[in-house]
Amino acid sequence: MSTSAEDHRTRSRRRGAQLEEAILAAALAELQESGYAALSMEAIARRAGTGKASLYRRWDSRAALMVDAVHALAPRPADIPDTGSLRTDLLEVLRRTAEVLAGPAGEALRGLLAEALPDARRLAELRGRSRGSTRQLMRQVVERAAARGEIPAGSVRPSRMDVGAAILRSRVLVDAEEPDELMIVEIVDEILLPMLRALPEPPAPSL
Amino acid sequence: MSTSAEDHRTRSRRRGAQLEEAILAAALAELQESGYAALSMEAIARRAGTGKASLYRRWDSRAALMVDAVHALAPRPADIPDTGSLRTDLLEVLRRTAEVLAGPAGEALRGLLAEALPDARRLAELRGRSRGSTRQLMRQVVERAAARGEIPAGSVRPSRMDVGAAILRSRVLVDAEEPDELMIVEIVDEILLPMLRALPEPPAPSL
Repeated sequence: MSTSAEDHRTRSRRRGAQLEEAILAAALAELQESGYAALSMEAIARRAGTGKASLYRRWDSRAALMVDAVHALAPRPADIPDTGSLRTDLLEVLRRTAEVLAGPAGEALRGLLAEALPDARRLAELRGRSRGSTRQLMRQVVERAAARGEIPAGSVRPSRMDVGAAILRSRVLVDAEEPDELMIVEIVDEILLPMLRALPEPPAPSL
Repeated sequence: MSTSAEDHRTRSRRRGAQLEEAILAAALAELQESGYAALSMEAIARRAGTGKASLYRRWDSRAALMVDAVHALAPRPADIPDTGSLRTDLLEVLRRTAEVLAGPAGEALRGLLAEALPDARRLAELRGRSRGSTRQLMRQVVERAAARGEIPAGSVRPSRMDVGAAILRSRVLVDAEEPDELMIVEIVDEILLPMLRALPEPPAPSL
C-alpha cells in the first residue's frame, strides 16, 4: 500500500511537470502567433488544454510565466561541450545565446523589457525572476580555461561574466542587428579573449 | 542693405535655434512631470510657448523629438578634458554617461526603448536617429591614448568603442542598478583597461 501511495505521488508530480511544460510550450506558440502585447493567459491556457486557474496557481502574472518560458529555451551548462580551448568554448556560448535571442525567446525578452522598462517596480521584479543563464555558461567556460592554465585565475571576475551577453543583447535586441557568425567572432576575438587573458588593473596603491 | 539682410537672416536663424532649445527643454520638463507614456506634443508646445505645428515642422514624431532632447543632454567630446591618462579619461567618460543615464535622459531612453522594442520598424528608426554620443567620447579618449603610446594602435577597434556604454546601459537601465563610483571603477579596471591594453586575437592562419 505504501508503494502504491508513492507511485501515486510520483505520477502526480510527473503530471505536474508535464503540465508545466505544456503551458510553457503553449505560451511560446501563442507569442509567435499573436506577439507579446496581445498575449493572454486565457489563450495560453486554452492552447495548453487547461484552465486559467492552473496557470495562476503557478505564475502570478503573464511576465512571470514568460520569464520561465524564456528560461526553458536557454542553453544549459551541460549543452556546452568542453572543447579544451577557451576561444572555441566562447564562440559556442555566444552562438547558442544568439540562436536563442533570434527566436521566440528574443521576441519574449523584447516584450518583457518593453513592459518593464517604464516602471522601476516591474523592472526589479523582472530582474529578480531572471536566472542569468548566460552568466552561468560564461562562468563555466572561463573557470575551465583558468583551471587548465589558459588564462590567469585572477582573470575570473564576476563583472566580466556578463560582458559577452550584454554586448550581444545590445546589438541584437536594441540595435536590431542580425546576430551572424561575423558578429560573434568579433565579440570573442576583439573583446572577450583579450579581456580574459589579461588581469584586472591592480587597485591604486594607497599612499 | 546686404548687411541688414544678413543681420535679418542671422537673427531668424538664432530665433530658430533658440526656439528649438526652448522646445527641447520643455520636452524634458514635461517628461519629468508626466513620465514618457503620458507625454504629449500638445503639452510640450504649450510649455515652450509655441504651437504644435512648429513642433511637427521639426520632428515628425514624439520619439524623434525625444531623441534630440536626449542628445542635447549628452556630454560632448569638448567636455572631456585630456588628463593625459587613459584610466582617468575613461573614468570621466563613464561618470558623465552615468550622470546622464541617471537623470531625465535615462527616463527618456527607457521610454523610447519601451516604445520601440516591440516593433522592428520603430527600433530601426530609433537606431537611425541616435547619434552615438558615448561612442564618440570613447573614440576620442582611446585615440588619444594610442597617439601617446599608452596603448597599441591596433587596439582601437570599432567593436570596442561601445563596450563601456553597453555595460553601463545594461546595468543602469535594465538591471536598475544605481550607477555609483564603484560600478564605474569596476567597469574601467576589470573590463575596459585590460581589453584596450591588449591587441585583438590575430585572425586564424589560413592553411
